[in-house]
Amino acid sequence: MSKTIAISTGGGDAPGLNAVIRSVVLSAHQRQWKCIGIRNGFNGILSPSEFARHGGGTLELTPDTVRGITHLGGTILGTTNKGNPLHFPIVHSDGTISEIDRTDEIISTFSSMGIDALISIGGDGSMEIAHVLAQKGLQVVGVPKTIDNDLEKTIATFGFETAVEFATNCIDRLHSTAEAHERVMIVEVMGRYAGWIALHSGIAGTADCILLPEIPYDINKVIQKIQEREHSGSHFSIIVIAEGALPKDGSVSVIGQSIGQAVRLGGAGEKLVKEIEHHIQKETRLVVLGHLQRGGMPTANDRLLALRFGASAVRAIADGHSDVMVALDPPHVNTVPLSEVTRRMKRVPIDSEIIQTARDIGISFGE
Amino acid sequence: MSKTIAISTGGGDAPGLNAVIRSVVLSAHQRQWKCIGIRNGFNGILSPSEFARHGGGTLELTPDTVRGITHLGGTILGTTNKGNPLHFPIVHSDGTISEIDRTDEIISTFSSMGIDALISIGGDGSMEIAHVLAQKGLQVVGVPKTIDNDLEKTIATFGFETAVEFATNCIDRLHSTAEAHERVMIVEVMGRYAGWIALHSGIAGTADCILLPEIPYDINKVIQKIQEREHSGSHFSIIVIAEGALPKDGSVSVIGQSIGQAVRLGGAGEKLVKEIEHHIQKETRLVVLGHLQRGGMPTANDRLLALRFGASAVRAIADGHSDVMVALDPPHVNTVPLSEVTRRMKRVPIDSEIIQTARDIGISFGE
Amino acid sequence: MSKTIAISTGGGDAPGLNAVIRSVVLSAHQRQWKCIGIRNGFNGILSPSEFARHGGGTLELTPDTVRGITHLGGTILGTTNKGNPLHFPIVHSDGTISEIDRTDEIISTFSSMGIDALISIGGDGSMEIAHVLAQKGLQVVGVPKTIDNDLEKTIATFGFETAVEFATNCIDRLHSTAEAHERVMIVEVMGRYAGWIALHSGIAGTADCILLPEIPYDINKVIQKIQEREHSGSHFSIIVIAEGALPKDGSVSVIGQSIGQAVRLGGAGEKLVKEIEHHIQKETRLVVLGHLQRGGMPTANDRLLALRFGASAVRAIADGHSDVMVALDPPHVNTVPLSEVTRRMKRVPIDSEIIQTARDIGISFGE
Amino acid sequence: MSKTIAISTGGGDAPGLNAVIRSVVLSAHQRQWKCIGIRNGFNGILSPSEFARHGGGTLELTPDTVRGITHLGGTILGTTNKGNPLHFPIVHSDGTISEIDRTDEIISTFSSMGIDALISIGGDGSMEIAHVLAQKGLQVVGVPKTIDNDLEKTIATFGFETAVEFATNCIDRLHSTAEAHERVMIVEVMGRYAGWIALHSGIAGTADCILLPEIPYDINKVIQKIQEREHSGSHFSIIVIAEGALPKDGSVSVIGQSIGQAVRLGGAGEKLVKEIEHHIQKETRLVVLGHLQRGGMPTANDRLLALRFGASAVRAIADGHSDVMVALDPPHVNTVPLSEVTRRMKRVPIDSEIIQTARDIGISFGE
Repeated sequence: MSKTIAISTGGGDAPGLNAVIRSVVLSAHQRQWKCIGIRNGFNGILSPSEFARHGGGTLELTPDTVRGITHLGGTILGTTNKGNPLHFPIVHSDGTISEIDRTDEIISTFSSMGIDALISIGGDGSMEIAHVLAQKGLQVVGVPKTIDNDLEKTIATFGFETAVEFATNCIDRLHSTAEAHERVMIVEVMGRYAGWIALHSGIAGTADCILLPEIPYDINKVIQKIQEREHSGSHFSIIVIAEGALPKDGSVSVIGQSIGQAVRLGGAGEKLVKEIEHHIQKETRLVVLGHLQRGGMPTANDRLLALRFGASAVRAIADGHSDVMVALDPPHVNTVPLSEVTRRMKRVPIDSEIIQTARDIGISFGE
Repeated sequence: MSKTIAISTGGGDAPGLNAVIRSVVLSAHQRQWKCIGIRNGFNGILSPSEFARHGGGTLELTPDTVRGITHLGGTILGTTNKGNPLHFPIVHSDGTISEIDRTDEIISTFSSMGIDALISIGGDGSMEIAHVLAQKGLQVVGVPKTIDNDLEKTIATFGFETAVEFATNCIDRLHSTAEAHERVMIVEVMGRYAGWIALHSGIAGTADCILLPEIPYDINKVIQKIQEREHSGSHFSIIVIAEGALPKDGSVSVIGQSIGQAVRLGGAGEKLVKEIEHHIQKETRLVVLGHLQRGGMPTANDRLLALRFGASAVRAIADGHSDVMVALDPPHVNTVPLSEVTRRMKRVPIDSEIIQTARDIGISFGE
Repeated sequence: MSKTIAISTGGGDAPGLNAVIRSVVLSAHQRQWKCIGIRNGFNGILSPSEFARHGGGTLELTPDTVRGITHLGGTILGTTNKGNPLHFPIVHSDGTISEIDRTDEIISTFSSMGIDALISIGGDGSMEIAHVLAQKGLQVVGVPKTIDNDLEKTIATFGFETAVEFATNCIDRLHSTAEAHERVMIVEVMGRYAGWIALHSGIAGTADCILLPEIPYDINKVIQKIQEREHSGSHFSIIVIAEGALPKDGSVSVIGQSIGQAVRLGGAGEKLVKEIEHHIQKETRLVVLGHLQRGGMPTANDRLLALRFGASAVRAIADGHSDVMVALDPPHVNTVPLSEVTRRMKRVPIDSEIIQTARDIGISFGE
Repeated sequence: MSKTIAISTGGGDAPGLNAVIRSVVLSAHQRQWKCIGIRNGFNGILSPSEFARHGGGTLELTPDTVRGITHLGGTILGTTNKGNPLHFPIVHSDGTISEIDRTDEIISTFSSMGIDALISIGGDGSMEIAHVLAQKGLQVVGVPKTIDNDLEKTIATFGFETAVEFATNCIDRLHSTAEAHERVMIVEVMGRYAGWIALHSGIAGTADCILLPEIPYDINKVIQKIQEREHSGSHFSIIVIAEGALPKDGSVSVIGQSIGQAVRLGGAGEKLVKEIEHHIQKETRLVVLGHLQRGGMPTANDRLLALRFGASAVRAIADGHSDVMVALDPPHVNTVPLSEVTRRMKRVPIDSEIIQTARDIGISFGE
């Protein structure tokens, strides 16, 4: 049976988004389905007038539209978020702002456009919206997207490995300079609540300390590691810190916070520089990788994963599934209920084998 | 209890070998164990005189010896294979050659050197030797190594992803030239019995056809794919072929062959060029990636996997395991009996979800 | 004064072609000139019917057309050469083929299209055509393009450095495998008449021997180098050979040959493998980089050079120059008469400082 | 005649330092000269006791010592600067600090060690010391080293291109994120007094604005550029700013300052973010590349240049030259008097052809 499906990319940029889109479009095309892309998350539906210049808030996606985009970073659909449909901001004439739920509007617009199903690519926030839409009767399949790799029920998400590869290469670059100049070099990487990027890139890049949101650090232990290296003749150290890592005593619990709310922790690296220079006389320099981790050409593995997710999402729709997310459970891609995914977070298990490996090869977590 | 462990790297080169060695040495050092590296597989033990110039066939490995090698390709121990200990060639005075089993000699030499356990890094052949040594009473833990990713019971092996990444980048490079010159470009990649590299790099690099050892190809279907593209306005095609891929009618069964025996299939790409040019008038060019796939800096993920394997192997020894191989079962590294690993091969399941994804996005397997 | 200029890309693919096109179009746009791109060299003019599907053999190029192409390999105009306008093949009804000069036709078509000037991007062959067109009264500026870096009067051409970078990275990859397996590894790179790629990548990749078209090699000297290394404990060697390198005694002079004629020298690497294995017992393996050297993303420097060439060509047209080629004379880009460029070739001077550097650091040229 | 030469690497880290060292050592070895490496600039001579753990402040460099280092970043000799020999800090017992000239001590120590000549690799500061030592009678040849490419009399220095390549790749990565999120992205690159890195990477990475120390910028013109793009439908902009770029009205002349003195300009990028967000409502994000630009594997071209400089320096010594620096004057490496090099600076000529190219393709310099 022929279908028309919509695709939406929400949340931040991630390498592999275009590969998912291409895979969805080609898989749908094989089935002679029609694909409609929504611009900028759900903005193309909720604020179509903003896209007048681009011919509207939606566009038909054909094999030609998605030609040659597998290896390109970014998303041809845009991701600029101007309002979560569950809590859409309304500015009143007196200047006050209130929020409304606009999900019914999405469903009715889809209906009027003849859209049978939605593939929603995004993070925790997008999965929550997807779940609500599915509960309201729309056929919805989610595709997980998070650079931080902190989504539950999937071993990996595309973009994460690309970010780890870039971060590792940056750490590689700093070794020679750290050694030649006899410095402490700190690299701050992404990871607000989960330290996956710091953990993987720190081990692969042979950092001396890795500081994670999951393991509050004791600055004295960090100093001790630097000094041990100093005494053994290595007059430099490399520390990888996740943006959400916190010192033990200053520890602010994030558990009680709504994860959907963007909490500004910030300055993890800067704070650490000051602490180290306060304790020992050692030139300490910071590099913040920031937005560089979100862009770039996806690695081969991330392209493959993104293509698999896209094709699997279309297959899930063909099989009549809804209210599910595709997920990697090696070697398979399967589906999991959206209700098991939202409002949770996959953090680094502090007794995992990877953590143990890091300890075994002499890496300190500042404990 | 203090131990002395030996490390050996057998079979061909693979990115990540040095990372395994470093991880073993540092993990052992943490436990105050001593590490002995054996040069060139078991040659350092069986033919020590060849290494006189290097101070002998074995060397003590300390944290200093393995400093800064995580990201380097190759192996500081060498892998040149001059004789499988199970079938060691003896040249007699009359010029004839016979084979003897020298595994007892390895065990007695280890004993005289005070070596308590062996970590054997290698492919199918090395795992078989490891199994025999373990059966004879030595504590042995294997670490799987195969670029082709064809070892059973582990989802992945280090080096595979690095090879896929390189192959994908090469395929990327050929797109513009293929299109600008309106040619068929064929890329031959490694994979004698299992087409994992071809499959992953072909999908990630958006090849039009992927030809695998697991799916004998019909040349007419390959031609048909090229012509369909031609008719739709794409005057070029990219075909990725595994070195072990065979046409349907010329199909030689490899199932009945001893996998240990190196069978020279060869020339898969050249054969395909001739077949295509025989059928249609279209400039067709071949690139054979060959040894380029074995070298280079391991990707971050391969470094991480190699470090995990090394540390896990030491942990397995500490826990008293023997006759096992460490293996990736995401998110865990566990151990599997060597008897379940040897003389088998992990081939691409032809009905797998990855194959299905490729079909869904329009890739032909020449079926 | 407003102008309409045509752009053509001839000869083989080279990283940077798109950057030249973008630079020409944007520079022309700043002057409010119009740009017309010709598809596939001059084919878009000479055989427009072939391009019916694409809307004709020419297309208007605007800033939108060339958006985001600076870093892409290939050329949006195509380069497939189906006939040199100076010697265009005509197939007669009796099956015989003769050649005609179709340059007058190009000039009259340009005139009818209101085209005031031509920027012709290409190699030696394209520069010759450009010169003829200029002699016939068309305003023409050439932009040099050769991966081999063998065009006279310009220190460098875009694409060359990208090819050298790729070749060097490939040589890097082979070191560990060559060493681990104790092999001789031969890398055949582009360079039919001039050995620039072999020379630069061989030095940067620390090859042991570099074999160039400019220095016929003595196989005994090559063997001697391998054996010297063997005796000093380095049981592997890396040899970089240009596709046009020839042994001393089999030396075929290319000096007397018309350079325009593509001479098939071929098989330089294969020949060398056989010679080495004939002389010594040493596993010797060949890697032919081939088409991989033509594609890929241009390096930053090649992009910059390509953009400079494009903008300089437009400036040359604005300044009323014709029958010239833009050329790099660091730190300047200037113009040189086309008559000084064609039918010549920039070969490696065998007494140059670069050759001397290679000798000083112990590299053999097989002399 | 046999000689003993010393090598020193001063100033900051730069990709290619190890390649220079290797080239010097191998070139000297060919002449049967002896090479002595000095650790950490001249510290190995002036404060040898600090290096007791490493076996002293100097070490003999042989072909074995420098094996396999061509492609490695950093320097095996170290560069940590603890005192310029021309102004060496002395801490008196009352806590006051005075400076003394210790160059005579270097000369007498060299004499007692039998050192005939010095190859000094470094920046402006190192060239000044080299000049003083040469004036005092030591045979000295300088090798220019500056990532910023701001040394006079040489078209290029190794490490510069590697930094440009990295910066360009970072700018590439930001395009998709900037576009997907509709942001202004600012990339701060090195270049305190000279904007070469910003200029080259900004053009190659297709920035919209490039802000250089040589062209004080008008914030209104920067805003105007962003708004022009906004109006034309490009809701994002990329700005590359050199760390030494200054706004017009806040312009602090650096001309009158002693270049040797490290002036902390700092925060160029941060200042710009604030200015932009002050003027327009547009999310603006900063990435500071910082130390990442100093490390990493040198590009093929930088390796080649470094190897040429090293071999040329040895040749200059063999030819009896002194008080000179090797310099690139394409296609040649020649020597220039040190007196013409020191206390000057090669800044971007604001009317150069490269600047003109940038303007022609629509890049704004904030003028």
